[in-house]
Amino acid sequence: MSTAQTAEPTIYERRESEARSYCRSFPVSFAKAEGATLTDSDGNSYIDFLAGCSSLNYGHNDPDMKAALVEHLTRDGIAHALDMHTEEKAAFLETMEHLILRPRGMDHKVMMTGPTGTNAVEAAIKLARKVTGRKNVISFTNGFHGMTLGALALTGNAGKRAGAGGVSLNDVTRLPYEGAMGDDMDTLAYIEAMLTNPSSGVEPAAAFVVELVQGEGGLNAASAEWVQGIARIAKEHGALLIIDDIQAGVGRTGSFFSFDHMGIQPDMVTLAKSLSGFGLPFACLLIKPEHDIWKPAEHNGTFRGNTHAFVTARVALEKFWSDDRLRNQIALKSQVLEERLHGVAARIDGARIKGRGMMRGVDVGNGELAAQICAECFRRGLIIETSGAHDEVVKVLAPLTIPMEQFKEGLDILEAAVDTLVPFPVAAE
Amino acid sequence: MSTAQTAEPTIYERRESEARSYCRSFPVSFAKAEGATLTDSDGNSYIDFLAGCSSLNYGHNDPDMKAALVEHLTRDGIAHALDMHTEEKAAFLETMEHLILRPRGMDHKVMMTGPTGTNAVEAAIKLARKVTGRKNVISFTNGFHGMTLGALALTGNAGKRAGAGGVSLNDVTRLPYEGAMGDDMDTLAYIEAMLTNPSSGVEPAAAFVVELVQGEGGLNAASAEWVQGIARIAKEHGALLIIDDIQAGVGRTGSFFSFDHMGIQPDMVTLAKSLSGFGLPFACLLIKPEHDIWKPAEHNGTFRGNTHAFVTARVALEKFWSDDRLRNQIALKSQVLEERLHGVAARIDGARIKGRGMMRGVDVGNGELAAQICAECFRRGLIIETSGAHDEVVKVLAPLTIPMEQFKEGLDILEAAVDTLVPFPVAAE
Amino acid sequence: MSTAQTAEPTIYERRESEARSYCRSFPVSFAKAEGATLTDSDGNSYIDFLAGCSSLNYGHNDPDMKAALVEHLTRDGIAHALDMHTEEKAAFLETMEHLILRPRGMDHKVMMTGPTGTNAVEAAIKLARKVTGRKNVISFTNGFHGMTLGALALTGNAGKRAGAGGVSLNDVTRLPYEGAMGDDMDTLAYIEAMLTNPSSGVEPAAAFVVELVQGEGGLNAASAEWVQGIARIAKEHGALLIIDDIQAGVGRTGSFFSFDHMGIQPDMVTLAKSLSGFGLPFACLLIKPEHDIWKPAEHNGTFRGNTHAFVTARVALEKFWSDDRLRNQIALKSQVLEERLHGVAARIDGARIKGRGMMRGVDVGNGELAAQICAECFRRGLIIETSGAHDEVVKVLAPLTIPMEQFKEGLDILEAAVDTLVPFPVAAE
Amino acid sequence: MSTAQTAEPTIYERRESEARSYCRSFPVSFAKAEGATLTDSDGNSYIDFLAGCSSLNYGHNDPDMKAALVEHLTRDGIAHALDMHTEEKAAFLETMEHLILRPRGMDHKVMMTGPTGTNAVEAAIKLARKVTGRKNVISFTNGFHGMTLGALALTGNAGKRAGAGGVSLNDVTRLPYEGAMGDDMDTLAYIEAMLTNPSSGVEPAAAFVVELVQGEGGLNAASAEWVQGIARIAKEHGALLIIDDIQAGVGRTGSFFSFDHMGIQPDMVTLAKSLSGFGLPFACLLIKPEHDIWKPAEHNGTFRGNTHAFVTARVALEKFWSDDRLRNQIALKSQVLEERLHGVAARIDGARIKGRGMMRGVDVGNGELAAQICAECFRRGLIIETSGAHDEVVKVLAPLTIPMEQFKEGLDILEAAVDTLVPFPVAAE
Repeated sequence: MSTAQTAEPTIYERRESEARSYCRSFPVSFAKAEGATLTDSDGNSYIDFLAGCSSLNYGHNDPDMKAALVEHLTRDGIAHALDMHTEEKAAFLETMEHLILRPRGMDHKVMMTGPTGTNAVEAAIKLARKVTGRKNVISFTNGFHGMTLGALALTGNAGKRAGAGGVSLNDVTRLPYEGAMGDDMDTLAYIEAMLTNPSSGVEPAAAFVVELVQGEGGLNAASAEWVQGIARIAKEHGALLIIDDIQAGVGRTGSFFSFDHMGIQPDMVTLAKSLSGFGLPFACLLIKPEHDIWKPAEHNGTFRGNTHAFVTARVALEKFWSDDRLRNQIALKSQVLEERLHGVAARIDGARIKGRGMMRGVDVGNGELAAQICAECFRRGLIIETSGAHDEVVKVLAPLTIPMEQFKEGLDILEAAVDTLVPFPVAAE
Repeated sequence: MSTAQTAEPTIYERRESEARSYCRSFPVSFAKAEGATLTDSDGNSYIDFLAGCSSLNYGHNDPDMKAALVEHLTRDGIAHALDMHTEEKAAFLETMEHLILRPRGMDHKVMMTGPTGTNAVEAAIKLARKVTGRKNVISFTNGFHGMTLGALALTGNAGKRAGAGGVSLNDVTRLPYEGAMGDDMDTLAYIEAMLTNPSSGVEPAAAFVVELVQGEGGLNAASAEWVQGIARIAKEHGALLIIDDIQAGVGRTGSFFSFDHMGIQPDMVTLAKSLSGFGLPFACLLIKPEHDIWKPAEHNGTFRGNTHAFVTARVALEKFWSDDRLRNQIALKSQVLEERLHGVAARIDGARIKGRGMMRGVDVGNGELAAQICAECFRRGLIIETSGAHDEVVKVLAPLTIPMEQFKEGLDILEAAVDTLVPFPVAAE
Repeated sequence: MSTAQTAEPTIYERRESEARSYCRSFPVSFAKAEGATLTDSDGNSYIDFLAGCSSLNYGHNDPDMKAALVEHLTRDGIAHALDMHTEEKAAFLETMEHLILRPRGMDHKVMMTGPTGTNAVEAAIKLARKVTGRKNVISFTNGFHGMTLGALALTGNAGKRAGAGGVSLNDVTRLPYEGAMGDDMDTLAYIEAMLTNPSSGVEPAAAFVVELVQGEGGLNAASAEWVQGIARIAKEHGALLIIDDIQAGVGRTGSFFSFDHMGIQPDMVTLAKSLSGFGLPFACLLIKPEHDIWKPAEHNGTFRGNTHAFVTARVALEKFWSDDRLRNQIALKSQVLEERLHGVAARIDGARIKGRGMMRGVDVGNGELAAQICAECFRRGLIIETSGAHDEVVKVLAPLTIPMEQFKEGLDILEAAVDTLVPFPVAAE
Repeated sequence: MSTAQTAEPTIYERRESEARSYCRSFPVSFAKAEGATLTDSDGNSYIDFLAGCSSLNYGHNDPDMKAALVEHLTRDGIAHALDMHTEEKAAFLETMEHLILRPRGMDHKVMMTGPTGTNAVEAAIKLARKVTGRKNVISFTNGFHGMTLGALALTGNAGKRAGAGGVSLNDVTRLPYEGAMGDDMDTLAYIEAMLTNPSSGVEPAAAFVVELVQGEGGLNAASAEWVQGIARIAKEHGALLIIDDIQAGVGRTGSFFSFDHMGIQPDMVTLAKSLSGFGLPFACLLIKPEHDIWKPAEHNGTFRGNTHAFVTARVALEKFWSDDRLRNQIALKSQVLEERLHGVAARIDGARIKGRGMMRGVDVGNGELAAQICAECFRRGLIIETSGAHDEVVKVLAPLTIPMEQFKEGLDILEAAVDTLVPFPVAAE
């Protein structure tokens, strides 16, 4: 099949909702994928610096996960079991316990929510409200947490909020993320003052929901000091700390969790996107056991626990998190990325690097230029997208497992695209 | 692995959230499944009258879908593509158009929402509010539509609503479902009066959201006359008609949609559960094209469009909806089911049959007896569950494709379980 | 001053908000008033069948209250004391206790809210929510309870609700008032079913707020049986019973409270309008002592307790409620009113009498005719207004103390106005 | 009558709600009042530095207003006329136009809301939402705007908000008042950033509601520069500017409006408290004519327009605002007040003066000391109260018309009380 433009409306024009979006930026039909390479129906291949918005941290179709899934299918392993016990769920939980939770001293329980990030966020805020008996949830400027009404109330983006059709997105207080007001403002002091002043009008908080790197919000990365400050304020004011690690987790910032080595203990952690390892729908909520006060089925969902994802997620944990090899790879590539992006930024007046680890990008100052850069990259065989309040950040979300050579090839394309569009670099390193 | 009770906590006790539920009723570990048969780790097999709460209408691991999925995996077909074009999505949409929509004269667009039912419901009410500029959504007593905050506001069940932790579930008006107040009350007249009286305090409605058979609410089935009445009232009052066909759709009531042959044209239809055919997470929202006013990405989600599900869903449509064979099978089994449930109901004082098609059960009068019956069935090798406001309905949700012999075997178990628990039948047919 | 229409804009056109309303129906300037007679600046006099919407149950400028107030002013009695103790407040409370509360066995506390009905209603629902820990308040079709956001959420009228400018009027469930759905529907059974069914989606109720005669809603009068039913349902479901007696109280329906002799014990009662006796702003909330859990100033207001109103209200209670004379007068006039309104209704096809006591009117079928009747009455020297969802009820709210002759004169005018507008009576008694 | 404590419960204990508050601080019964002097039933007199929380800016029982009101009563002037035209209303409006609005170039319309401040605030936010089609209203830390649900949502005080019994106080965004975060934070820059960033999560604002001196919030006074900044930001972002002048208006800060000479043009102004001049319940909302889009009766209220208050308010305007004498008096007393309060503050470690004009006080650092000072003042014959988030500010709200000698006498008492309680002054000027 080809999506070549003809007079006749395509199947997408005829039948797919106008809500579709990425296909507008990358108007080809993809046929297969492997590692960091996507191939379209005409045989053209593309380097993937989008990686399913960080859902494909291990690349496409990892051979070990694929083999395990094929084996599972072949032997009539369970595909769907609601939340009944299966060997695959037990194996996933045991691996999660053994490789991820226990080494970090985390005694968290794992809640299988509906298999999307927004479902995990909804479960988290419902539970935080139950635990504390409070309703108000603190979220941050430029935060993105999902599109269902509870999660959307936490999300800052005006365009996304407009989708609610005018209903109030309530019971949330918005406070400034680190650096959101420039370097001069002490956001922690402000947050603390608003929670401490009994006449501030800010209701006692059930929870703080925070991303350590704001993926959709423009790759704003919080410092350890700020995160510790938030953790301390939350604790002092009786609020739970919920880390939304849906985009920044599963290795993206250098370690499994984005909060590793930050010296904090979140009360809850949301995981989705790359958790299955294979791009399958899968999400979970980690909960400190003292907060796990759900009654059976008080929050449920038909697809909670996706058995195929249990299989691939277990393989992913075993393959990539049994030792330090992936972590070391990420560290190395993060360095390369940082260096190369400095080169890109230097070509654009006022541009600056943002983000952390393999979740980095360049704020090029405005959305038009960022969009032009991405379009030029695509013409040159690189899939890359923007983020930020004004879509002003060109965002690199390459698979963590991308071979170094291919990674550099992708970065070369990015640099060349910028050179094409910004012909007279203001400065060079 | 075995779930035998030992002194040591199991992995589930150690690490799975207390929200888990079905595994409490069926405390074994399942190892594989085929058709209507589940097998546990000890080699015991069970007839499946739960079918993933109607997510497995074609049974477990249908060989044709399985083969197609293995082939897709083997050739490195895309697993995750956000909402970019893939050959698999195009093929699914074309098959949906060809076999389902066009034959019914439905010009609906297909929106790939996050792959769970609640995400589809959230998308539907957001869009209805955008389209109409109104906020109030009408839902019905005993309705169930999901667990994220927007969908939960539509859901009637007090236990589920309690999960919200005290936030108001707003912008919804609850009206009586057909028969909810007994046979004497004309619920349509009531609904019309509440919408027509400008001093009723009921705000103009953006939409009616209705299930034609209330799966979780106790298998209450609406008549065509009532459904047409709702459609008429919605139209007259400028509200959109949203049919939630997540549990009742995809053949469960005898035809693909639960509203087929009802003489109505819904503005939107939510589909999930059995849509993938294989039990994979997958959901979509059908939208009349004039209402498809979404801006690109105004509602999105990482896993919108699950490529593996595109593959299996396409095979399912081709295999089961290209001709009348499945429909005829369902009709036949529905008759058998009705007859046998009459026999069950006759054994229990005051019991009565509920539901439609292959979505039927027996209201045994109270939740305790219903739970005992299900537990006894499980001891005898049948997996079956309850529904209803008091969990008072023993609900049969067998795969539509279950062989007749096995179907009768399951019904024999149900009958025997009832005989054990209700030894002196009040009456027999 | 005259309001004669000249080319120059009047002071009202120049400076009074468009929200003004009654002055549009009665476009003269009033200069003085006494008893049931209003006199305009040109010396024309009018019989007052509006009585400040039941704020002037004892007529205008009662000489005893006037004398007491002049005496109070002359001796520099307090005009404003916040909620400090004054001799006038003590005297009012003691008279209220002695003449109203104790004879009825009511141990209620008196809360001085801001001096308007809506403030009393707001205080009532805030307190009911505090007492019960629940948020949902039940109110009724065609109910009117005020215009501030909390009270407006209880108010049914669409035009009034539109004033909220689109914010959701939440945490209220609207249920049908007696007779709202015609005689066939058992509204009590419906209400009970909605509260009893745990999957109805109706949250547990903090309170029922109900008027025993709906003044703005069209003079719908509840029967004792229905009111007792509501009281019983509220009690059984842990909800407080709040009687809004702002318009129907203070003698309007024949006794001091509209619920006297109904066999119920409300948890709270709102009073305003005629409470001061003189038309002064004054309101209070009666609260069963076990519910009086306010902390000091937890609900307050600058004008809570209007000292001038304490003076006149005390005189009013002493003058009119120390013996049965007023009650007997009301009974007599109510009979006259009923008979004469039957005569009016008989002149209009399909018209019917509504209301109770001295709070009665004729539903003439549509708002246009009702408006024409009122306009014609005004031309003939009678001030009278409409109520109802469609303003279809011509409402008689004469002072309870109106001399019988003047009362009949007013009714003659009403009858003559109808005769003018509906020249060929369909039927006559 | 006396409130001497006896074994028998007083009428207040028996019958007045626990919500009563000021009477607990000043446990005597007041009998009469004149100017700045209150006299109790035992003949003791007190200097009034509370003045009905700024409701008695012209003192108690001004002889000219009293005479006019007695005359009005004596000639059977209207007491209650709903919102019909009366000579008294016309005269008030004309005087308001002539003496207040026209000299300031204000073309505002006057809306007679229910006669309490909170009703005026509710009307203002309803109208702002109607005008803009937006729901979000900006209010400020430590703001106080009333106790009905709409106004309470704007109010910051946690104790007051707790009165809502747990319902969400929605559709309000709380932003920092000038100086609320110390001198270092540029609150205007913060506010502008939150409104400008499309991903801040702050919805477009219908209005800013702001007090220029926060009466209940601790006498925080905004600078002209800040107020102009707020006006500019509101305008740039399409939000209306609503000045809540209920406590700070009617001369309290030196001129009729608190925003006089600030160089701004508010879209709406709320007035209440001292508007009647005599302490009678009275409130209005000033509205720029282009925003006066109310339909007739879309916001109403039984006591809108209190005719007695029209009489006294007109006299007050004529007597005090026809020339500069009162303004000059206020200026002089403000200077005296400032000087004397510096003396008080100097006696208390860390104390500081707050407020503006005749709305000034001393932040003594904590609520316990402030309460002790007020109690000691009362023992010495001075009525004075606290404000602030922690009730830490001793607040002087003397009548503007208080004779200088009596004013100094009151200040002497305050100073003596502080000397008694803080015997070793840390420093003296």
